[in-house]
Amino acid sequence: MAANGLSALAVRPVDRSLESVLRAKVDGKAKPPGSLGRLEDLAIRVGLMRNCVTPRVERIDLFVFAGDHGLTEEGVSSYPAGVTIAMVNTFLAGGACVNALSAAANIDIHVVDAGVAADLPPHPDLIDAKIRHGSRNAAREPALTHDEVRAALTRGGSLVGKAIDKGADAIAIGEMGIGNTASSSLIMHRLIPAPLAECIGVGAGQDDVGLARKRAAIERAAHRSAATDPFEVLSEFGGCEIAMMAGAVLGAAARQRPVLVDGFIASAAALAAVRLQPAALDYCIFAHRSAERGHARLLQALGAEPLLDLGMRLGEGSGAALAGPLLRAAARLLTDVADLADILAAAEA
Amino acid sequence: MAANGLSALAVRPVDRSLESVLRAKVDGKAKPPGSLGRLEDLAIRVGLMRNCVTPRVERIDLFVFAGDHGLTEEGVSSYPAGVTIAMVNTFLAGGACVNALSAAANIDIHVVDAGVAADLPPHPDLIDAKIRHGSRNAAREPALTHDEVRAALTRGGSLVGKAIDKGADAIAIGEMGIGNTASSSLIMHRLIPAPLAECIGVGAGQDDVGLARKRAAIERAAHRSAATDPFEVLSEFGGCEIAMMAGAVLGAAARQRPVLVDGFIASAAALAAVRLQPAALDYCIFAHRSAERGHARLLQALGAEPLLDLGMRLGEGSGAALAGPLLRAAARLLTDVADLADILAAAEA
Repeated sequence: MAANGLSALAVRPVDRSLESVLRAKVDGKAKPPGSLGRLEDLAIRVGLMRNCVTPRVERIDLFVFAGDHGLTEEGVSSYPAGVTIAMVNTFLAGGACVNALSAAANIDIHVVDAGVAADLPPHPDLIDAKIRHGSRNAAREPALTHDEVRAALTRGGSLVGKAIDKGADAIAIGEMGIGNTASSSLIMHRLIPAPLAECIGVGAGQDDVGLARKRAAIERAAHRSAATDPFEVLSEFGGCEIAMMAGAVLGAAARQRPVLVDGFIASAAALAAVRLQPAALDYCIFAHRSAERGHARLLQALGAEPLLDLGMRLGEGSGAALAGPLLRAAARLLTDVADLADILAAAEA
Repeated sequence: MAANGLSALAVRPVDRSLESVLRAKVDGKAKPPGSLGRLEDLAIRVGLMRNCVTPRVERIDLFVFAGDHGLTEEGVSSYPAGVTIAMVNTFLAGGACVNALSAAANIDIHVVDAGVAADLPPHPDLIDAKIRHGSRNAAREPALTHDEVRAALTRGGSLVGKAIDKGADAIAIGEMGIGNTASSSLIMHRLIPAPLAECIGVGAGQDDVGLARKRAAIERAAHRSAATDPFEVLSEFGGCEIAMMAGAVLGAAARQRPVLVDGFIASAAALAAVRLQPAALDYCIFAHRSAERGHARLLQALGAEPLLDLGMRLGEGSGAALAGPLLRAAARLLTDVADLADILAAAEA
C-alpha cells in the first residue's frame, strides 16, 4: 500500500488475545451460554475490532457511493445510465428505498458523488468526491488510471475518517451505479479468482438477450487485461464508486471501526480492500446474502456468513441499513446485560 | 371460541382482494421489481393485516409473559424454578438480554406475571395478570383448569388490546418460564400433530442424563391425556404464560395488528392460537428460527418462513426484538418510497 501512497489507510489486524476474554464475558451474561447464537459471535467480533470489552455502537453512518460506468455503452444494463443521476436525486429527496430503510433503523445517510457522469448541482446533503464523469469503458480500455484509483481509495478513507471524527461508531457502505454489477463481476473473477460464469448475474434485471449481451461485454473486458493485482484490477475494471467503497472499508478498518458491507457490489469492493490489506477483513460485517448470482460465492471466498438472507438484490445500502440494528444489539450484549452469576445468586437467596 | 366465552377474540381473515393492489404498489416503487425480496412480501402482508395500502408500523410493544411450570418437579430443566422470578426481577431492573436488544431496537417492554410461582412485590413496570402460582404438574394432572385457560386467553387478549388503544402499531410476544420448552413440546406434539421425539430439545441447556429425564417426564404427561382439541391441550399441558401468549396473538389478530412471534415457546402459543382460530395465522410474523429442536418443524407446520436465522435459543422475546426493525422497514416501503415511474421520467427529462 505504501508504494501506492496510501499509508494513511494501513490496517492493523485485531488482537486475538482479547478473544477469550470477550468469550468469557459473553458466556457470563444473564443467559444460558451460547443461547444468543451468532449474535454472541458478532458481539465478540465488535469487541475485537474496538479492542475493548464494552464496545459502543449506536451511531452508524451509511455512505451511498454513486458512480457511472463506461461499460453501459456495451449494453450491460437494462436501465439507462441516466438512472444513476435520477437515483442520486431521489436519495437527496429522501424518496428511495434506502432512505425509508435507514429512517426505520435510525441510520444517517451520506450521499457521495464518486463518479456520476454529469455535473450535479450542489446540494447540502451531497458530498462531491467525484473522480471523473463515469469510469471509462472497460471493454475497450482501463476503466480508471492509477491516479484515479488512488484518489478514489484516499477519498473513501478520508470521508469515513471524518465521519468517525464526528462521532460515528460504525460505518455502512452501499452504492448506486447503473452497470456496476458488471464491474463487480470482473473484480470478483480476478480477485477470488473464480470462473467468470460464476460471477455474472442479472443485476437490476435482464432478459436472456440482455444477459447474453452483458456476458459478452464482460468477456471482452476480461480478455483485454490479465490483471490480478488488486490495485491493477480496480484500475482495469474500475468503477469510481467501487474503488471509493474499497477505500471506505480500509478507512473504517484503519480506525478499528466495524464496517457493514451491503450486497454484491459492496462486497466486491470489500474483496478488493481485503486483497489490498488482508487485515481489513477483521472489520467487515457482511449484512446480507444478495440474490444476485455470484454473491454467495464471493462471501464464501471471504469466509463470511452474512447476517440476513432475505432474497434482496437492490443495493443502495438497503441490506446494510436493515442489518444496522443487529450490529447495535450485538454491542449492547456486552455493555448492557447483567451477569448470570448475580441472577443465580438472587434466585438462591 | 364463542363456546369458550372468548367471542371478544374473534379474528377475521385478511381481505385477500387487496393483495394484487398492494403487490402493484410495491412493484411500482423506486426499485427493480422484486429486488427487495422477502421484505416486499412482508410489506404486502402488513398491508393486508391493516387492510390499508399505507400501513404504519412504528411503535412495537413487546410483552414478556412469565410463568412457572409444575413439570419442573419432574426435573425437566437444568435450571432451578426460582430462576423465573430472578429473571422477572432482571427484566424489571433492565439487565436482561431482552432489555438490551429492545433498547437497541427502540421497542418498549411490558413484563407480565402470567403465573410465576411466588407473590411478586408490586412494581410500576410489572403487569399483574397472574392466573395461579405456576401451572400444575402435567405429568400427574391437568396443568390448568378450563377456567384458568379461559382467563389466560382473555387476559392476554385484553393486555394487547389496551396497548393498541394506547398507540401500539404492532405487538411482539416473548416469555420466561423455567420448564416451558417441555410444555411447548407437548402442545406442538398434539396440535401439529408430530411425533414426540421431534418436539423435544435441550431447552436452556441439558446434558444427556437431564435430557433423558426431561423426555421421560414429557412422555408421562403425554400418556396421561389423549387431548387434541387446542383448548383441551392448553388445559392438559398448560403453561399460564403460554396460554396468555395465545390470547395475545388472538387479541392482536382481532384488532388486525401484526404480531411478532419470538421463538419455540412463543410459536407453540401461536400454534395454539391458530388452532383455536385459523385466521390468526394471517397476523403472525415469525421472528426467527430458533436453534431449539422442534422449532423448524413447528414453523414448517405453520407454513412460516421466519425473518432471522441466527442460531438463537434464548426466548424472552429476544428474537422478536431483533426482528422489530425489519417489520418497521417493511411498512415504510409502502409509506415512504417514491414511485419508479417518476424516477424514470426524471432520468429521461
